[in-house]
Amino acid sequence: MDVDKKYFSNITTRERAIFEGAISMGALFHQFVGTPVNKHTKDSLEKCMEESLNLQPAIEDVDVKIRFDKLEESMSEFDYTSLTGDMLDVRIYTKLENVEAVIRIEFVEQLNYPLMYVENIKED
Amino acid sequence: MDVDKKYFSNITTRERAIFEGAISMGALFHQFVGTPVNKHTKDSLEKCMEESLNLQPAIEDVDVKIRFDKLEESMSEFDYTSLTGDMLDVRIYTKLENVEAVIRIEFVEQLNYPLMYVENIKED
Amino acid sequence: MDVDKKYFSNITTRERAIFEGAISMGALFHQFVGTPVNKHTKDSLEKCMEESLNLQPAIEDVDVKIRFDKLEESMSEFDYTSLTGDMLDVRIYTKLENVEAVIRIEFVEQLNYPLMYVENIKED
Amino acid sequence: MDVDKKYFSNITTRERAIFEGAISMGALFHQFVGTPVNKHTKDSLEKCMEESLNLQPAIEDVDVKIRFDKLEESMSEFDYTSLTGDMLDVRIYTKLENVEAVIRIEFVEQLNYPLMYVENIKED
Repeated sequence: MDVDKKYFSNITTRERAIFEGAISMGALFHQFVGTPVNKHTKDSLEKCMEESLNLQPAIEDVDVKIRFDKLEESMSEFDYTSLTGDMLDVRIYTKLENVEAVIRIEFVEQLNYPLMYVENIKED
Repeated sequence: MDVDKKYFSNITTRERAIFEGAISMGALFHQFVGTPVNKHTKDSLEKCMEESLNLQPAIEDVDVKIRFDKLEESMSEFDYTSLTGDMLDVRIYTKLENVEAVIRIEFVEQLNYPLMYVENIKED
Repeated sequence: MDVDKKYFSNITTRERAIFEGAISMGALFHQFVGTPVNKHTKDSLEKCMEESLNLQPAIEDVDVKIRFDKLEESMSEFDYTSLTGDMLDVRIYTKLENVEAVIRIEFVEQLNYPLMYVENIKED
Repeated sequence: MDVDKKYFSNITTRERAIFEGAISMGALFHQFVGTPVNKHTKDSLEKCMEESLNLQPAIEDVDVKIRFDKLEESMSEFDYTSLTGDMLDVRIYTKLENVEAVIRIEFVEQLNYPLMYVENIKED
C-alpha cells in the first residue's frame, strides 16, 4: 500500500511536515507529563523522550530540555516531583522531501501555558 | 499579547487548522491509551476523551468511538482490558477563520498501525 | 487457574486489600495527570476516572474530587489547564472477604506532595 | 511533620512495604504504556522507567525488562509500536526497616492479563 498516496495526497508537503511534528509534540506532552523526576534522573528522562518520539513518521530529531528552574520550584519533601508542562522546552524537527519544520513547546509565563507552535519552516 | 500574531503568523490558516488538530490527536492517544475499559465504561470514557480534547485551541468538535470488536478481542479474565491504539476510531474537527479540517485516527490492518491523517480539509 | 491460590497465598487478606487499592491509586494518578480540564469538564473527567479504576480487581468504589481551588489557580489564558497531582482528592475503597480498606490521595501543603496513604482499614 | 507517624501508624511495616511497591507498579504501567518503542530504543526506555520509579518512597530498586518477543509481535509497518502491558516484565524492590518485598508484573497468557502480585516478601 502506498500510504502517502492514499492518505496524504490531499495536503502539501509543508502541511504534512507540520502535521507530523504536531502529532509528536502532543504525544510527547501527554505521554510523559506525570513522570517522577529530579535532577538525578533528568538526563535519562530527556534521552528517553527524545528517542521515543524520534521513532514517529517524518521525525528527524528531537531535542528535549527539562527546565531545571521549574523542576526545583516544584520539588517535594521526598526529593522528586512529577513532570509538568511548564518544565518542557522541546524542539521537534521534521523533514519531508524539501521541507524542514521545527515544532516548539515552551512555557509562556504571560499565558500561564506551555505553548506549542511552528518555530521555523523552510523549503529548499 | 497577540498570540496569533506573535507565534502563528509564519503559517497559513490551513496549516494552523492542521497543526492544532494534529496536536490534539497526538494528545488524545497518549493521554488515554492504557486506561482500564470494558463495555460498561466505554461510553463514559468516550465522553471524557471528547470533552477533554475539545478544550484545546481551535477544536470545534471531537467524536470518539472505541471499537467494540477490538475491545472484546483483547478482553482479560478480569472482565476489562487496557485501551490500545487499535480500538480508536476518532475524528477531531478544527475550525479557524474560513478553514475547517477533520483529523482522523483509525487502525489500518495492513500497516498494523493506528494511522493519523487529515481526512478532510476545506476553505469556504 | 486459581489465581488467588497461585499468586496471592503468601500475603494476608488485609495485605491484599492494601495491595490492590495501592495499585489502582498509582494507576489513577499516572493515567490521568496531564488531561486537559476546566470547570465545565471536571464532572465528566471525575466520572470517567471513577468508572475506569472501578474495573480493577477488588475495587468496591472510587470517589474522585478534582479540587476546584487548585484547578482555578493554575488556569491558563486558554480557559483550561492540565490535571496535576495537587488537584486530586480521591478515595479508593477495596473489599476482600472480611476486610475493607480505604486508600486516599490528598495534597499535603507542608510536603508539597500529593500523599497516598491507607486512610482506613477494618476487619469484620 | 512526622509523616510516618501521622499517616502510616495504622499499618504494619510489611503492609507498607507492599503498599509502596504496589503504588509504584501501578504508576509504572499507566505512565509508560503507550510510549513509542522498538528494539533500538528499548534500552533507554527501560532505564528511564527504572530511574523514574526508583525515586518514589521506599523503592530500593526497579528492574524493567521489555519483552522482545511481544515487542516484535506487535511491530507496525513504521518499524515501531506502542508499549503495551503484555510486554512488561518488571520487579520493584521495596525496603522498610527489616522488611523487603518484591512486587512483580508479568503477562499471564491464561488470563490474557498483565498480573501484578507480591512475588516475595521477607522479614529479617
